[in-house]
Amino acid sequence: MKKFEERTVVSETLYNGKIIKLHVDEVELPDGKRAKRELVKHPGAVAIIAITEHNKLILVEQFRKALERSIIEIPAGKIEPDEDPEKTAIRELEEETGYRANEFTYIQSFATSPGFADEIIHLYLAKSLEKVENPAAGDEDEFINLLECTLEEAEGMMNDGRIYDAKTAFAVLYIKELLKS
Amino acid sequence: MKKFEERTVVSETLYNGKIIKLHVDEVELPDGKRAKRELVKHPGAVAIIAITEHNKLILVEQFRKALERSIIEIPAGKIEPDEDPEKTAIRELEEETGYRANEFTYIQSFATSPGFADEIIHLYLAKSLEKVENPAAGDEDEFINLLECTLEEAEGMMNDGRIYDAKTAFAVLYIKELLKS
Repeated sequence: MKKFEERTVVSETLYNGKIIKLHVDEVELPDGKRAKRELVKHPGAVAIIAITEHNKLILVEQFRKALERSIIEIPAGKIEPDEDPEKTAIRELEEETGYRANEFTYIQSFATSPGFADEIIHLYLAKSLEKVENPAAGDEDEFINLLECTLEEAEGMMNDGRIYDAKTAFAVLYIKELLKS
Repeated sequence: MKKFEERTVVSETLYNGKIIKLHVDEVELPDGKRAKRELVKHPGAVAIIAITEHNKLILVEQFRKALERSIIEIPAGKIEPDEDPEKTAIRELEEETGYRANEFTYIQSFATSPGFADEIIHLYLAKSLEKVENPAAGDEDEFINLLECTLEEAEGMMNDGRIYDAKTAFAVLYIKELLKS
């Protein structure tokens, strides 16, 4: 869909970092006027709704520098260059939780902040989990705390703000629907 | 919650734009090692789940330069400096849709991309809508197309990718739950 397309007139890369890039584009609007768009480029990420045989949701607690606080999220991680998102998801689930899933299905993808960033999260459902004996280690600058909680506990964490990000909020509603059906 | 806190050692502002800022921080990790964090500062936003008396969801189609395509989203907008989020939400609903709500309630807030950005979206539910005679105009660089659709139509749009952002995906699950109860 290209409705109301904004044609790039000039694109300037202002930062080319380890994870993100910053571009500032001058665009031509549908009425011929010009506007500036500040755009963050991100490699994309995966997130995993992992459910144990006792219908508990697997969550990770970690400090998020951008928010200056710890939050509780579903396991997630960035896609490495040329990595297939499903492979990323399987890898991140193992690295962050020590679990491997015998049932692994794609749910859907969504953009997290379409107003300024191209980050897409690909969401997977992991069931029939088993503990991996010697799980692969995660990023060395990542400190996480593993949790397993019921739907009711997750809803409580959403209400008190410990769960505080869009993908995990989506996941809580998703499993509420799933466990009912 | 400050668990696993990453203490800022140096913070450098690399870009200070109209909407976003880019900081690169050097942080001290819980184990004493250092790491770099690329952080986007955003003023925050609101989004509105607006439901008509016929249980239709109000959506807006707009071109998102970051994604290079048009997507269909719930009405949303950035918080202006010192603006109360609820006031932003009432204003954006009127500007983008021409509706005012007699029932306006806060749902919850979430971070959209906690891995690299501090953007928070505050989500509101708008019901008992009425058309405003001379609605306030929106941003002059914003071109939008207004839609009203049933829950089933919204689910279809989520499946075919026309709905493609986290807040709207959350909204679709939220109204599914709401309309059932």
